Amino acid sequence: MIQIAVMGYGTVGSGVVEVIEKNKEMVNKKSAQELNVKYILDLREFPGDPYEDKVIHDVNRIMEDDEVTVVCETMGGLKPAYEFTKMALTRGKSVCTSNKELVAAYGPELLELAREHSCNYLFEASVGGGIPIIRPLNYSLTAEKIEAVTGILNGTTNYILSKMETEGADFDSVLRKAQEKGYAERNPEADVEGYDACRKIAILSSLMLGKHVDYRKIYTEGITKITGDDFVYAKAMGKTIKLLALSKETPQGAIAMVSPFLIDLTNPLHMVNGVFNAVCVRGNMLGDSMYYGRGAGKLPTASAVVSDVVDCARHQGKTVMCFWDREEAVLADPGQVERAFFVRAKADGREQVSRAFPGGSFVEAGRTRDCGYLTPVMKEKDFAERYAALGDAALGRIRVEG
Amino acid sequence: MIQIAVMGYGTVGSGVVEVIEKNKEMVNKKSAQELNVKYILDLREFPGDPYEDKVIHDVNRIMEDDEVTVVCETMGGLKPAYEFTKMALTRGKSVCTSNKELVAAYGPELLELAREHSCNYLFEASVGGGIPIIRPLNYSLTAEKIEAVTGILNGTTNYILSKMETEGADFDSVLRKAQEKGYAERNPEADVEGYDACRKIAILSSLMLGKHVDYRKIYTEGITKITGDDFVYAKAMGKTIKLLALSKETPQGAIAMVSPFLIDLTNPLHMVNGVFNAVCVRGNMLGDSMYYGRGAGKLPTASAVVSDVVDCARHQGKTVMCFWDREEAVLADPGQVERAFFVRAKADGREQVSRAFPGGSFVEAGRTRDCGYLTPVMKEKDFAERYAALGDAALGRIRVEG
Repeated sequence: MIQIAVMGYGTVGSGVVEVIEKNKEMVNKKSAQELNVKYILDLREFPGDPYEDKVIHDVNRIMEDDEVTVVCETMGGLKPAYEFTKMALTRGKSVCTSNKELVAAYGPELLELAREHSCNYLFEASVGGGIPIIRPLNYSLTAEKIEAVTGILNGTTNYILSKMETEGADFDSVLRKAQEKGYAERNPEADVEGYDACRKIAILSSLMLGKHVDYRKIYTEGITKITGDDFVYAKAMGKTIKLLALSKETPQGAIAMVSPFLIDLTNPLHMVNGVFNAVCVRGNMLGDSMYYGRGAGKLPTASAVVSDVVDCARHQGKTVMCFWDREEAVLADPGQVERAFFVRAKADGREQVSRAFPGGSFVEAGRTRDCGYLTPVMKEKDFAERYAALGDAALGRIRVEG
Repeated sequence: MIQIAVMGYGTVGSGVVEVIEKNKEMVNKKSAQELNVKYILDLREFPGDPYEDKVIHDVNRIMEDDEVTVVCETMGGLKPAYEFTKMALTRGKSVCTSNKELVAAYGPELLELAREHSCNYLFEASVGGGIPIIRPLNYSLTAEKIEAVTGILNGTTNYILSKMETEGADFDSVLRKAQEKGYAERNPEADVEGYDACRKIAILSSLMLGKHVDYRKIYTEGITKITGDDFVYAKAMGKTIKLLALSKETPQGAIAMVSPFLIDLTNPLHMVNGVFNAVCVRGNMLGDSMYYGRGAGKLPTASAVVSDVVDCARHQGKTVMCFWDREEAVLADPGQVERAFFVRAKADGREQVSRAFPGGSFVEAGRTRDCGYLTPVMKEKDFAERYAALGDAALGRIRVEG
């Protein structure tokens, strides 16, 4: 029997208890033993909750109970999750988490602590919700040299962009509707500014490179400047606009970035609509493979946490392999990366734009209010300088992927 | 050091040697030890091949060499692969295979033999080429009750259907071109009649149900009767036609089937074009997740075999879990399954069709040569009877998914 403590009885934590109960037979079979939730740690009381009697408020009861061998950390945030996780791992209790902030910030340290104490720190739920992606990277694509990871890792922004595309609406109005429906937070900054996707790509990039990618050093741009007009041009080019979180080996070194991109309809990520997430992994033998599913939500995320618990049950006393060293990965200067850009400018700025980016071409979308222009492939840095020089004539610019 | 023998130096076998050599650093790191190909078993000689000196013709040299702990079976077919695999497992040598025929026919027996001798029988490469699907089912979706698995599991037929759709061409002419390009075999029966997909869905169904699904009991229909005309109607309905291999829990029991289906453009499988494969897995907590990539080819398939070798290296002396009992799964009578059907009939058969399937509707595609009709949801058995009664008026029928 595996005794489990759940720390944080919010959406994901209560989902974990629900998944273990509802899929009891399956989960116990896959673990080759019974899983039992012994404690639920939360500051709050839950009168009337079916698991009311398991709720405790003192973390030490978990830490001091030697029967508890697996802890699910579903609190989120750094404090006190970081402290509690270290306490558990130091006592040889495995920790399974959905907390992307903590994994991105302290992943290598906590993995090391787990190794030192022959237990596990697993975080399948921290990226892509219920989509298996961490385990495929660690267990499945082991014969590959991973060259690139490109993901749609935030459901809120993907929902907003999908709606802007299909309804021709502008960012603000779609955001408001998404908030009304509960698809976006009242304070949407972490999603729409790309901070959430940034933590997630930091985790995937670290696993790809085997070294620590500091999320604070990842260039991150959100979707607030994307307009309905941009989608008109995207359509005219046979493309769509997605917020991509990507990490790539380039001749200039590894790059990692979160930004809206124009992508082709042949890119498998183009069909990822609404709140769905997907991660495309390019290996040097396999080429592209893609993992797609629900990137958030109570039960999908909880399912991933419980799959980690099953993994702990299967590997008691043994630390499963995860290559993510403390050594910091050196990222290339994003300014040196080369790509094409789409520029939208005022109608009377046509000449200025074509002079600024010779060798590109105008995108014909039958519009008179503005003009759209596709630059040739050029360095980010050079583009940025010349774009800035357009001054008032410029209405927006979007990176082009591929 | 893990000493490996490769049995069968054809496309996949030579790919295995190539992947181990090219990605040596990565593969050794992920295995936490060095992998070395000691023997290559084949009937042929390979003069001038860089691994010529490893080529042997006597399987006993592998079996009698205690240093060899992992065998890659990339011979294909049942004979002598079945015998050789049993010999290896009985000696405690793990076997990693790409051989779907053998896995579908003798999977549970060989898994049992591996358990008895504390080694492993792994077959990631047998389904979906390089797409990780076996391991996600066995290791990742462990907190799910899997309710359905639906796949595009054959690249040749998917390539043909994609071409028929985009070029409006008929089956025969596209097949001929595919054969010229090497995308289809000179004897294409195993692909176009669905036999290849049938073996693969038998394997996935068995893993889903934990019991043995006999591939000979899976209803299997190929794509030879699909015409360019069908795609005109598919488009008018906002659908496309795919050869699906599926396995589902239904109120009538589990069903498994290979057949062309009309699917909606909202189905994530609709965008799987050309030689790509994908598997959509529905879990009771996670909902739909999808795994997409190259379903065939030398290096992708070899990469999957090598990932199995890495798994063996990580679990020496230990059998990793795989739930696939010898007990045969009871499949429901396919005739009792309910769904809608698309019927194409002669233009003067309109009245006959609408009388045969009351409650359906004609599909307007601006055609005069024939007519298209969508039946209401009905039992397969009832449909088959009434469709047969249409006689010469009927030109074809396709199942509708979802």
